[in-house]
Amino acid sequence: MNRPASRIPERENLIERLRCLLGDRTTTSESILQQHGRGESWHPVRPPDAVCFPRDSEEVAAIVKLCAETSTPVIAFGTGTSLEGQVQALQGDICIDLSRMNTILEVNNEDMDCRVQAGVTRRELNQYLRDSGLFFPIDPGANTSIGGMTATRASGTNAVRYGTMRENVLGLTVVTASGDIIKTGTRARKSAAGYDLTRLFVGSEGTLGVITEICLRLHGRSEAISAAIVNFPDVRSAAEATIQTIQTGIPMARIEILDAAYVKAINAYSETDYPELDTLFLEFHGTRAGVAEQVQMFEEISRDFGASGFQWAEQEEDRNRLWRARHDAYYAGLAVNPGYCGYVTDVCVPISRLADCIAETQADIAASGLFAPIIGHVGDGNFHSTIFIDPDDEAMFAKALELDQRMVRRALEMGGTCTGEHGIGIGKLKHMRSEHGDGAVALMQALKAALDPQNIMNPGKIVDC
Amino acid sequence: MNRPASRIPERENLIERLRCLLGDRTTTSESILQQHGRGESWHPVRPPDAVCFPRDSEEVAAIVKLCAETSTPVIAFGTGTSLEGQVQALQGDICIDLSRMNTILEVNNEDMDCRVQAGVTRRELNQYLRDSGLFFPIDPGANTSIGGMTATRASGTNAVRYGTMRENVLGLTVVTASGDIIKTGTRARKSAAGYDLTRLFVGSEGTLGVITEICLRLHGRSEAISAAIVNFPDVRSAAEATIQTIQTGIPMARIEILDAAYVKAINAYSETDYPELDTLFLEFHGTRAGVAEQVQMFEEISRDFGASGFQWAEQEEDRNRLWRARHDAYYAGLAVNPGYCGYVTDVCVPISRLADCIAETQADIAASGLFAPIIGHVGDGNFHSTIFIDPDDEAMFAKALELDQRMVRRALEMGGTCTGEHGIGIGKLKHMRSEHGDGAVALMQALKAALDPQNIMNPGKIVDC
Repeated sequence: MNRPASRIPERENLIERLRCLLGDRTTTSESILQQHGRGESWHPVRPPDAVCFPRDSEEVAAIVKLCAETSTPVIAFGTGTSLEGQVQALQGDICIDLSRMNTILEVNNEDMDCRVQAGVTRRELNQYLRDSGLFFPIDPGANTSIGGMTATRASGTNAVRYGTMRENVLGLTVVTASGDIIKTGTRARKSAAGYDLTRLFVGSEGTLGVITEICLRLHGRSEAISAAIVNFPDVRSAAEATIQTIQTGIPMARIEILDAAYVKAINAYSETDYPELDTLFLEFHGTRAGVAEQVQMFEEISRDFGASGFQWAEQEEDRNRLWRARHDAYYAGLAVNPGYCGYVTDVCVPISRLADCIAETQADIAASGLFAPIIGHVGDGNFHSTIFIDPDDEAMFAKALELDQRMVRRALEMGGTCTGEHGIGIGKLKHMRSEHGDGAVALMQALKAALDPQNIMNPGKIVDC
Repeated sequence: MNRPASRIPERENLIERLRCLLGDRTTTSESILQQHGRGESWHPVRPPDAVCFPRDSEEVAAIVKLCAETSTPVIAFGTGTSLEGQVQALQGDICIDLSRMNTILEVNNEDMDCRVQAGVTRRELNQYLRDSGLFFPIDPGANTSIGGMTATRASGTNAVRYGTMRENVLGLTVVTASGDIIKTGTRARKSAAGYDLTRLFVGSEGTLGVITEICLRLHGRSEAISAAIVNFPDVRSAAEATIQTIQTGIPMARIEILDAAYVKAINAYSETDYPELDTLFLEFHGTRAGVAEQVQMFEEISRDFGASGFQWAEQEEDRNRLWRARHDAYYAGLAVNPGYCGYVTDVCVPISRLADCIAETQADIAASGLFAPIIGHVGDGNFHSTIFIDPDDEAMFAKALELDQRMVRRALEMGGTCTGEHGIGIGKLKHMRSEHGDGAVALMQALKAALDPQNIMNPGKIVDC
């Protein structure tokens, strides 16, 4: 409730105008403001002054126009599952909650694409596609909105085969900082027609405009799908097996690492009985013959690295149970540490450096004394250590910050990035210059100033203007 | 030789300073200027005032700094194979020929990536990679430079499986309009760290900066490769077979259409004896079992559409002969029309509309009376009609312009793009508003103004400032 400064008469007047526009779809209810001032990680709540619930791009444009008139910051909000403080209202801003924009506007089966409003969640979309033979593969774990996934350049478990949001967004409808509605991209699979505005907005975290509609690539469901877990003697062996699998060109659909500590937490939370060892969770997609061939190749590689205890799941129900357990890891970690919150790290390195990076990180964690199990999309070279911290223990938080800082430095030294998929928000602003250099950051600032001269689109995130 | 206006004393002085910087690697030799004022399509020659041949990013930066001081336009030049007037010097500009920046800087076999100077050609790179088990798949036909391919967002025959330059560039070194050297991207396979500067420069045609180094994804050579040609009763049947092949999810490496007119020209030019029918040129990549399965699935589909005359090529030499013939199509068309030049069209539509688009275009061509055979990367929904025109026949040129205009309108109405892979240059500037709308074009203009406030980076291309 730390926002007296913003409660100026002009802001009250704006909120009145937003009420005239949207009726009770503009709210200042304290509980709703609190709920909209946070994601799922450790960043403190920073509630907005009001939350609007538009139904279409035109209403979003009208809201942004009103905000632009008074230079009031605007924050787009999807499902509130971001991890780097992307939705925190730093200046008591107006939050645009897109959850009521949840219409699937069109599905073109023949072209394997669709157009959705930004508030549609990935599970809603896949539920809708259930009988079409198509699916939307990007799976960051939480049941995130497509708009939020686009704005954060999300990826998750299937990216090793199907790419990230960068590769799967064909086009966008965006409300610009001046409240204009523009469209980017076409339904063609490729184009060389001018600047790639679509890719500029993908990953821009609401700082260049509000994404209101997304045209997505869909993918055909495979004839055969096989999931598995397999145990390794240590995390390095699991990472080495992953590296060789990727280098061999096996078209893995998913290849995920969970260390023993995470498997143990999952068993306690999800009432599963997976062997409490460093483990790879896998999925193979293809024709029947293709999957059989992939499985054989993978088994041969993994045995060279000491793998054991293959457990297979072929029925959809069994596969879903396996992946639900994997996705519950974060919540399992919270459950076994009551009262703690998660500080989620997120580095990504070239695959050849993955085993070194994970092994060094593991040693670093052990030395820190923190509980920070490792999980990751290792096929992409991307992994997380989730540091579970007591939010009231400042010394513990300082240790977590330092551990994260060292992880980022290690990843950058190995030619990697400070964030594979969670984005910059406010949490990783401090790493932008060490990753990109002053020149590239200056260029990003120039882009931001050109597209948002009043600095009202989610200010204070990605670039510090 | 139409540039007296630009031969002002200030320009002469700049050229002297460039000579001080580079010695005889700055030239004003008339034949070299002429050669640098054109691509490979119909656009009239517009020579620059001088051509510089830098050896590294630092020299490019020094050239750009000198040009920036006098607000002199700068044009980056690769192999001169662009098709939409991208290198034409509209204001008697300084051309930066990157062909001496032809060093392959590093190849990381384990990570399947490499870093090259912008002047390295795709054949040089693949020659270098010959024994590594890796290859660079993007293949637009001509032996283009990697820098030029990046700047044009090129694609070509393998894009249906391996993506375009958009998907295969990991990072860049760029000299900005102020002469600063920046780096974009990392060697990690994905990142969510800020604005996607890499994708902003890919396809920017030298209008936002000069690309000097490129970090590329490479791909593993498949265990088995099989190429084939197969004939169809008409172009629509070939397109319908393509649509179903893509929708079935067969991971085609190449699927290219050539109409009977083009096959006939190739036979005459390349001394081949392919049946002079509408034909698909195909390539399958995978494991031995995988390729056999793909071939079987494709044959079943194609027979439903009346396919006949399958001819297979499995040895590398035979495959190379087949693809050389395919790539010679443009030159074959020129050879059978002595004195003519090529006006290459380039539309791309959602795959479901491909058969309609090609069939309607074919009828349109027939009605026009022009010789305009069709060729295309049909797996992406992308095809070209090359209109062979007598450069001295104004009426014929006007007809070609009108035919192209109708092709673009048809593609846009079908949800496609005015250019799948050749870019905008000056030739397609006129279509930018109909494809993107005024709002998106204004946004592109804002980006251009932010990154190149003096408008010296290849001015007059992509956006009209």
